[in-house]
Amino acid sequence: MKDSNIICQLFDIDFPIIQGGMIWVSGGKLAAACSNAGILGLIGAGSMSVDILRAHILKAQLLIDKNKDKYNDKNSIPEIPRVGVNIPLLYSQAKEQIEVALSLGIKIFFTSAGSPKTYTTYLKDRGAKVVHVTSTPELAIKCQDAGVDAVVAEGFEAGGHNGRDEITTMVLIPQVVKAVKIPVIAAGGIVNGDSIAAAFCLGAKGVQMGSRFIATKESSAHQNFKDMILNSKSDSTMLALKKLVPVRLLKNSFYNKVKELEDRCADKEELEKLLGKGRAKLGMLDGNVNEGELEVGQGCALIDDLPSVKELVQQLKEDYTKTLRCEYP
Amino acid sequence: MKDSNIICQLFDIDFPIIQGGMIWVSGGKLAAACSNAGILGLIGAGSMSVDILRAHILKAQLLIDKNKDKYNDKNSIPEIPRVGVNIPLLYSQAKEQIEVALSLGIKIFFTSAGSPKTYTTYLKDRGAKVVHVTSTPELAIKCQDAGVDAVVAEGFEAGGHNGRDEITTMVLIPQVVKAVKIPVIAAGGIVNGDSIAAAFCLGAKGVQMGSRFIATKESSAHQNFKDMILNSKSDSTMLALKKLVPVRLLKNSFYNKVKELEDRCADKEELEKLLGKGRAKLGMLDGNVNEGELEVGQGCALIDDLPSVKELVQQLKEDYTKTLRCEYP
Repeated sequence: MKDSNIICQLFDIDFPIIQGGMIWVSGGKLAAACSNAGILGLIGAGSMSVDILRAHILKAQLLIDKNKDKYNDKNSIPEIPRVGVNIPLLYSQAKEQIEVALSLGIKIFFTSAGSPKTYTTYLKDRGAKVVHVTSTPELAIKCQDAGVDAVVAEGFEAGGHNGRDEITTMVLIPQVVKAVKIPVIAAGGIVNGDSIAAAFCLGAKGVQMGSRFIATKESSAHQNFKDMILNSKSDSTMLALKKLVPVRLLKNSFYNKVKELEDRCADKEELEKLLGKGRAKLGMLDGNVNEGELEVGQGCALIDDLPSVKELVQQLKEDYTKTLRCEYP
Repeated sequence: MKDSNIICQLFDIDFPIIQGGMIWVSGGKLAAACSNAGILGLIGAGSMSVDILRAHILKAQLLIDKNKDKYNDKNSIPEIPRVGVNIPLLYSQAKEQIEVALSLGIKIFFTSAGSPKTYTTYLKDRGAKVVHVTSTPELAIKCQDAGVDAVVAEGFEAGGHNGRDEITTMVLIPQVVKAVKIPVIAAGGIVNGDSIAAAFCLGAKGVQMGSRFIATKESSAHQNFKDMILNSKSDSTMLALKKLVPVRLLKNSFYNKVKELEDRCADKEELEKLLGKGRAKLGMLDGNVNEGELEVGQGCALIDDLPSVKELVQQLKEDYTKTLRCEYP
């Protein structure tokens, strides 16, 4: 697979699976575990100050198996293979985050929530691979024009921030595949071997999985949040806060308050006031699963174990290979 | 495939594809064309009086190739193979529609918008096959308990009336497959060979396609509506009227008026008043594509030709076989 798949070649990975960069749950530990398991791990910079991002990149470097011996060898330089950074471009520190990541040897950037034009050329000129996240075929074309190496096409079922057109993975992927020549990475609702296989059928060359990696031993999500995912059902998430930025949330006391406001057509200001500051950290990292903002995808209903990343990747690989080799139906 | 696939066996069809029963666009002509092409055609009774339904069943019978010689042969009884009726159970004439269909030899019933308990036993006792439509794994279990032969699991991207939990096809199908032992037919966003193959990967044993069959020569949709589908884009549909029954609509002048009311939190009564009577007929059958209610799925963006049913089925079959036989990725 490594020799024939363009996503594997692009990131020097063994299986075309990418651990999505998420706020509060995907730091250096998770990314290094993914790298060690042969897939691409992304550090989610969205919730990090520049200093925290630096610390997570260094932590990833320290935890990468390949570097173990290098720290005792003066002549050997530690590497950071198969680890990238996801930079949401809407935050003011995006540029500084990029500089820090580049200075520490990061060569893979996933950008989102902004224009692909802003940093693609800058990053490519510095030898980096660049991928931009899109929720429409129209933006995918702009990404291609901006010179990215690939796009992540993310459907309505995905957790966290979400497109306004509510296009699902099943219909988004074929449209993006048709619209661009660069490889497409499918995201949104992909949680197991069957859905990876389905994404390949739709024309994707790789997949990005977020929620599935929250429920691993190495993610930095609070155990209470992980437990909520393991106990979730088909109707446990909903797209909310559409008047601000649409975001898919796990239903809890905070979500119910949002819904109450939305049901009575509360304005932006009132919603912003309820949201306040630090809601996502409160829920996802600190474990207040009642009052925190819990960002997770609809596919959480299909997640019911808490493996190590190594176990998960092995299982996914076995399952999608088996599914694709089946005689259907 | 006919010998090994449980959906093919259940309905005596050559490929596990079902033309969904839809209001105003799927009458006897379309169902007969599907039957003649080796798949299951459904007459959509939702928009039909009992007399109109009778006329459409007789029309289907007349147009089925197998019957051509039988009309000249006194000793031969015309048949109605591979044609079923979709009965939405929320309308008062549902029981009478069922009786008419049974009396004319219909042996396949797809029920929806009601409890699977209401008619399943009654229909099974009369030798019919029964399938119920669900948008949640929880209802799928109730369908199984009621004794249906299969379920259609329909995702958020589907056209027309839609579930309240907004569960997409990508995450719904695996959940329903896990929840029940009976075969699962996938629906919602399935428009071509790639998406059929993807549905099989997710565990479905067959697919139901609606929008794709509106854009065929034999559907009774008005040409203006067909043209709207051919010209649609990724953001051309949206789920609307959630305060009444959620329904996925093609955006037009009528949709804009609905949105305007919804944006200012108009109540049920105001929405009902705007909707009025006969909006769907006005748009889908009479061709007033500005003021009519146009029910279609999100997958319309991927539909750009107007083949005959025979051409379409041949193409789908070739495409999904090819996709499933590929070495991925």
